[in-house]
Amino acid sequence: MLLSKLVGERVKEAPSDVTILSHVLLARAGYIKPVANGIYSLTSPAQLMALNIENIIRDEMNKIDGQEVKFPVVMPRELWESSGRYYSIGSEMVRFKDRGGKDMLLGMTHEEAAVHMAKNTVSSYNQLPFMIYQIQTKFRDEPRCRGGLIRVREFTMKDAYSFHMTQEDLEKYYARAYDAYMNIFRRIGLKRFIAVKSDSGMMGGNVAHEFMLLTDVGEDTLVLCDECGYKSNMEVATGVREDVDFGEDKPMKEVFTGDAKEISAVCDYLKAKPYQTIKAVVYAVKGEKTIVVAFIRGDLEVNEAKLKKTVQKNVVPWEADGESGLVAGNIGPVGLDVKDAVVVFDKSLEGAYNMIAGANKAEYHIEGVNVARDVGPEKYADIAKVSAGDKCPVCGKPLHLENGIEIGNIFQLGTKYTKSMGMTVLNEKGEAVTPIMGCYGIGVGRAIASIAQESNDKAGLILPVTVAPYKVHICPLRIDDSAVREKAFALYDALKAQGVSVIIDDRENVSNGVKFADADLMGMPLRVVVSPRGLAANEVEITDRKTLATEKVSYDDAIKYIFRTLEKKYEELR
Amino acid sequence: MLLSKLVGERVKEAPSDVTILSHVLLARAGYIKPVANGIYSLTSPAQLMALNIENIIRDEMNKIDGQEVKFPVVMPRELWESSGRYYSIGSEMVRFKDRGGKDMLLGMTHEEAAVHMAKNTVSSYNQLPFMIYQIQTKFRDEPRCRGGLIRVREFTMKDAYSFHMTQEDLEKYYARAYDAYMNIFRRIGLKRFIAVKSDSGMMGGNVAHEFMLLTDVGEDTLVLCDECGYKSNMEVATGVREDVDFGEDKPMKEVFTGDAKEISAVCDYLKAKPYQTIKAVVYAVKGEKTIVVAFIRGDLEVNEAKLKKTVQKNVVPWEADGESGLVAGNIGPVGLDVKDAVVVFDKSLEGAYNMIAGANKAEYHIEGVNVARDVGPEKYADIAKVSAGDKCPVCGKPLHLENGIEIGNIFQLGTKYTKSMGMTVLNEKGEAVTPIMGCYGIGVGRAIASIAQESNDKAGLILPVTVAPYKVHICPLRIDDSAVREKAFALYDALKAQGVSVIIDDRENVSNGVKFADADLMGMPLRVVVSPRGLAANEVEITDRKTLATEKVSYDDAIKYIFRTLEKKYEELR
Repeated sequence: MLLSKLVGERVKEAPSDVTILSHVLLARAGYIKPVANGIYSLTSPAQLMALNIENIIRDEMNKIDGQEVKFPVVMPRELWESSGRYYSIGSEMVRFKDRGGKDMLLGMTHEEAAVHMAKNTVSSYNQLPFMIYQIQTKFRDEPRCRGGLIRVREFTMKDAYSFHMTQEDLEKYYARAYDAYMNIFRRIGLKRFIAVKSDSGMMGGNVAHEFMLLTDVGEDTLVLCDECGYKSNMEVATGVREDVDFGEDKPMKEVFTGDAKEISAVCDYLKAKPYQTIKAVVYAVKGEKTIVVAFIRGDLEVNEAKLKKTVQKNVVPWEADGESGLVAGNIGPVGLDVKDAVVVFDKSLEGAYNMIAGANKAEYHIEGVNVARDVGPEKYADIAKVSAGDKCPVCGKPLHLENGIEIGNIFQLGTKYTKSMGMTVLNEKGEAVTPIMGCYGIGVGRAIASIAQESNDKAGLILPVTVAPYKVHICPLRIDDSAVREKAFALYDALKAQGVSVIIDDRENVSNGVKFADADLMGMPLRVVVSPRGLAANEVEITDRKTLATEKVSYDDAIKYIFRTLEKKYEELR
Repeated sequence: MLLSKLVGERVKEAPSDVTILSHVLLARAGYIKPVANGIYSLTSPAQLMALNIENIIRDEMNKIDGQEVKFPVVMPRELWESSGRYYSIGSEMVRFKDRGGKDMLLGMTHEEAAVHMAKNTVSSYNQLPFMIYQIQTKFRDEPRCRGGLIRVREFTMKDAYSFHMTQEDLEKYYARAYDAYMNIFRRIGLKRFIAVKSDSGMMGGNVAHEFMLLTDVGEDTLVLCDECGYKSNMEVATGVREDVDFGEDKPMKEVFTGDAKEISAVCDYLKAKPYQTIKAVVYAVKGEKTIVVAFIRGDLEVNEAKLKKTVQKNVVPWEADGESGLVAGNIGPVGLDVKDAVVVFDKSLEGAYNMIAGANKAEYHIEGVNVARDVGPEKYADIAKVSAGDKCPVCGKPLHLENGIEIGNIFQLGTKYTKSMGMTVLNEKGEAVTPIMGCYGIGVGRAIASIAQESNDKAGLILPVTVAPYKVHICPLRIDDSAVREKAFALYDALKAQGVSVIIDDRENVSNGVKFADADLMGMPLRVVVSPRGLAANEVEITDRKTLATEKVSYDDAIKYIFRTLEKKYEELR
């Protein structure tokens, strides 16, 4: 590639609304160009990175017996009605009418299409297990796009679907897919990534893992135990809390607390600790009149994902409306009288006594609440967020929290789709059996963003050799010097002829400083400087973008040196 | 690939509504599965064919200095407003509102996105020429889908856009793109394909070529001269007609013709030849009240594409409504009195006399019409279809007609998009200049259909080696025989290890006949039969799918033989 012709402008400063590092770097290098909110064009370096990542994914999917297929982006309503998701998915799915007035949609994921392909064409147990996958554009109308390619609306995704006769067979395959994912992330050059247990969300099913890049800018909170390796997404994490001292079990007593409403204010007012209070958190249910009142110990936070699972409803933050009968800031479990409410008690309140709770009356709280004695909930549910320092549920050592970006996920789906869509195959006894599915996704654009997020220095990107669009960046200095031009292009041609992807900065009237800065920003693994001074000694300078080590290499040995160095870099990621 | 696990059922009969041969074969082989009207899923063999074709396209695009990029499928209204196409394109473009109420659309082509990517990032003449291309999903809401993958709504397309400082530079590049296209079609194994001059349609611009596969099922009519190589799409073809003898130039005379309305009936009634008559063809203009009346010699047909260009309006067949004042079946140029009409005279009427024309009065025609004398049109336009036997406009030899499927197209776009979107670059003198564009498209799915249409025999597909998803199809007979299984899989593993894509029919309880029939239907270049009888002589049978020639080859030499044979096949398509 001639840099002079490369479309995609390198700039010193990213736009001011671009704040996340990977976004800054991809924008500054001219690799991405916004077309609309959460929709990007990829210029050639980014698209070549995408192809490199796709080929690594393809290789690992083929190794676990995947069959690459292609499902359509646009699907008819009927297909998504057959699984029920036409109705259960909200406005993140794009729907439109075609010219004939038929309801169509843009695929967010392809479970239905996968079952549609397999149904009727696979009929016997000995055709299972099999896995079909595609690499295809998806569109999800995200309400909150962020971080350039991190969270977008349109993206390229590898999505895979496996079909099994038994749960055991699914689990065996799931383990292979897990390993394939670890291989993929290692091979594309990511370093701080882990797999955590996760919520299966709208996919249905039970067991699920997310692959997470650990990074401060991650939106997900991960709960980790260094001791035993317990890893979980906060959404499903459990922890064991230190015992607390509730003091003496006293009778209830109403106390004036004035305008103290927040736990911290009530604690200040009554000289209590947060763990001695009962916090009420109120939620509305989307599309229903119901409200959900969650009671939890005052030092803890409600985990909305767990709460949703517990009440089996899609809860959203509630806004006080004056109609519910709730006294915001003074809500408590004693004497609570509210219509259309689901009340949930967190396990942290099991056995709690001498607690401070709202009195359901403006300006008053109740002291000395013994939850079992004075409220007597039928059951307690685990709806609390794990905190750093809680004990690991497996080994009891302290847990810590980290942020992560989801870079892939795998699900044991079960029979949700095969059952609803009526797919069966005959088992060895000739009986119709509903196959059990797994599904497996990786976003290609997010992988690019993750690499950019993790692999950089102050000067710019440091692209892993497996992913870099060009492996070598040739910088001829004084390209108007005919010897420099000739020797630089001879190297360029020779590398190309041997199948090495290479870019040459053939720009005239550009300073050495700009050439070096652009090379650093763009991040190719090796930079080769061809200069009049170097050539006088029959030498070129080769710089490793990662270590910044520079070697003077004889011009005649340059190709051999480059091959050897690249090979070493490939070896590290094998 | 294990055939036992391959998703995609092979069947003896295609559904009864499937009639075009390529569609029949792709459906019977289980390569495509309809999801909605004009929307297909590709099973693995078809997707692997698509990838092979895409890689050949990619290679040829890179050779002509293309930069692979990726534009989004979903684009905002504003982008297409900037070129004016948001309004000029009708219901074949899908539009929808996103969750924020913004107007979005699905890309049918990406000229706007290409200019958007280049604008502001390319600023100087020495960055030109450049070409950017993508391989991406497109959606066009076609009213008439047909022939399986031939005409669909969703398809994968390679679309390329080049930018130039001068028309000369565009023409130079256009010639390179033309050659690259010829290479692509040759390399994917097509045989009867040609490039013809074509109409540039909704793309804008002037010079354009379509690449056409010659086939009876083609929807396009091509006008060809074997002598000098003149080739044109009927839409823009010109031909020179034989002179005709109008007889004696008589005065006009009204004659009773009763219910003779069609040219043939009028000719019968008046004992005349069709070329002695004037045919009137009436069109409505889409979205307007205007009608268009086209007069043409009775033995000729109106070429609607030419008529559209002549009147610069989108004409559609007219339906008599009783309000226009036109007397259907008796319309003629003499005494025509009609409101809101555009009247066009074909060149075939220039100098015509002693003609029979409608009298604009029920049951009457006029004989002896001398067009210049009695009508006196201001001008004549070429709106006639070329007929077989017309003379070549270049060399004068007879033309012949063939049907074709469009498999690719290239356009000299001019400045339509760069101008409307305000893209300029500075020339050598520092002046802002509007770049001139070319664009270049190939549909991947249609290429698959074209190969299937052209390359087959009664037993099934005959896939070119460059495109075949698997190069070798191993058929072990009696796979329950452990020696057969072992030797067949050893061959399978060895070929895979050496990078040859291979499929093995590992099914048990399937007759030899079914195995052979499936192999023939699926169409891989080489079939290798491993049987107990063959192995007894340490032999396998290798059949060339194309020639059907079978050779007995020593088991030990099989790999070498396969490599040699495949290499020869690759060589033929280089």
